[in-house]
Amino acid sequence: MPSLESYHKDLDYSYAPGIFPAMEALKKRPETVRRILISSRSEESEGVKTLIALAEEKGIRVETADRALSRISGKENCFAAAVFEKRPSVLKQDADHIVLHHTSDFGNLGTILRTALGFHYLDIAVIRPAADPYEPKAVRASMGALFSLRLKEYEDFDAYRKEFPSHAAYPFMLDGARGLDETAKEIKRPCCLIFGNEGAGLPPEFARIGQAVRIPSSQDIDSLNLAVAAAIGMYQCRR
Amino acid sequence: MPSLESYHKDLDYSYAPGIFPAMEALKKRPETVRRILISSRSEESEGVKTLIALAEEKGIRVETADRALSRISGKENCFAAAVFEKRPSVLKQDADHIVLHHTSDFGNLGTILRTALGFHYLDIAVIRPAADPYEPKAVRASMGALFSLRLKEYEDFDAYRKEFPSHAAYPFMLDGARGLDETAKEIKRPCCLIFGNEGAGLPPEFARIGQAVRIPSSQDIDSLNLAVAAAIGMYQCRR
Repeated sequence: MPSLESYHKDLDYSYAPGIFPAMEALKKRPETVRRILISSRSEESEGVKTLIALAEEKGIRVETADRALSRISGKENCFAAAVFEKRPSVLKQDADHIVLHHTSDFGNLGTILRTALGFHYLDIAVIRPAADPYEPKAVRASMGALFSLRLKEYEDFDAYRKEFPSHAAYPFMLDGARGLDETAKEIKRPCCLIFGNEGAGLPPEFARIGQAVRIPSSQDIDSLNLAVAAAIGMYQCRR
Repeated sequence: MPSLESYHKDLDYSYAPGIFPAMEALKKRPETVRRILISSRSEESEGVKTLIALAEEKGIRVETADRALSRISGKENCFAAAVFEKRPSVLKQDADHIVLHHTSDFGNLGTILRTALGFHYLDIAVIRPAADPYEPKAVRASMGALFSLRLKEYEDFDAYRKEFPSHAAYPFMLDGARGLDETAKEIKRPCCLIFGNEGAGLPPEFARIGQAVRIPSSQDIDSLNLAVAAAIGMYQCRR
C-alpha cells in the first residue's frame, strides 16, 4: 500500500482525525474509507476498540501509524484517524441549501457543517476560493458531519446558481434590508441561506439576488463570528 | 519599565493582541492600558497609525516590540497589542447574566464574549475551573469585547448563586425539559443563561436550580459546538 502523504488539496483522499470523526466516516460512508490509523498508545481506549471492531466488521484495514497520525493531526495525542476518499456529492434539488461563499477559516467551515447537520440542512455548496472542506482540520471541526452531508464545491456563485436557479435566496448581510425573525416567519422553500467571508462578508451585489437578511445586533461589535451568525440563521430558518 | 513576561494566569496584566482588540482596550478601558506594542513591520498599516494616534491622545506609551509581539500572539504577523491591567468587575444586580460553567476552550470563551456583547448581555460570570478569560488567545477571539463587559470569575457556582440568588436560572442542557423557543417566550428577568463545558455539558443537578432548556437539534449530531449553542440561546432570549 502506498505511503500516506501529508494532506494537500490535490490528493484524492484525506484524513478524518479523532475517534469520533473517524467513527462517523466508518458509519456513514464506509465505502469511502481506505483504512483506519490508530496510535500505539491508544490500546486502552474504549473508543479505539469500538472503532477497530467496526472497521473489522466492514472489512477495512486497521494499522498502527503513530508518525502519520501526529503529522496529519498536528497534535501529539491523536488516537485515531480514518483515511477516506474525497467524493463530491450532488445537491438535492428540492432541499434547502447552505451556501458558503469564500469561507476562509477551517474551524468556521467545520463548525458550520456540524451545525448544518444539527438543524437538518443536508446540502452544502462551498463557493471557491474557500477553505478546503476536506482539510483534516475542517473534518475534525465538523466532528465528522461531513460524512452525513451532500457537499459540492463550485468555482463561483454563478455556477451554483445555474444549477439551482429557483431556490429562494437569502444572503446574510450586515446591512440586510430585513430582520432575521421577520424573514424566517415567511421564508420561501426550497431556499438557500448564503453566508459570506469572515472579514469581508458578501459583496454588495448579493443584495439583488434575493432577500438580504440582517441579524439584529449591537453597534458595539463589528460583526458576529461567522460560525455564530450562520448558526443563528440556520436555527431561526429551520423547518 | 520592567520587561514583559509571557502571559500566565498569576500576572496582574495581560495582552490584547491584534489591532482591533488593542483599539477596543484603548477606547473602552484606557485607564487599564499600560502601553501599546507595535511591530516594526507595521508602519504602513492604517490601523496601526490610528492606534498610535489614539494612544498619544490618551497619554499612553507606544513602543516597538517585535519579539514580545510574536511571543504573546504565537504568530509572526501580529502588528500590535495592548498591555492591560486585569481588573475584575462587579456584575450588575438587575441585569441578565451569562454564566459560563467550566468552559475549557479559549476560542469558545472569546467567541461567547463577542456574541454576548452583540446581544447586549454585558454581565458575565465565569465559574472555575475554566479557561482564563484574560489569556491573550481568549482576548483576541473576543475581538476586544472583554473591554466592554463586566466579567467576574467565581470559585464555584454556589459562590455566584449566593451573590445573585434571585436571578431566574436557565441551564442549557441536552436533555433540558423545555424547548428554547417556548422558554424564550415566557422568560423571567433578570435571568441567568447557564452554559456548561464543551465535552461534559452541565452536571445533572443543574436541572433543579431553574428551568432546564433544550435547543432542539437532530439526533445525527452529538451536540452543537458550545459557542454556537450559547449564541443561539442568547439570540433567542435577548430583550
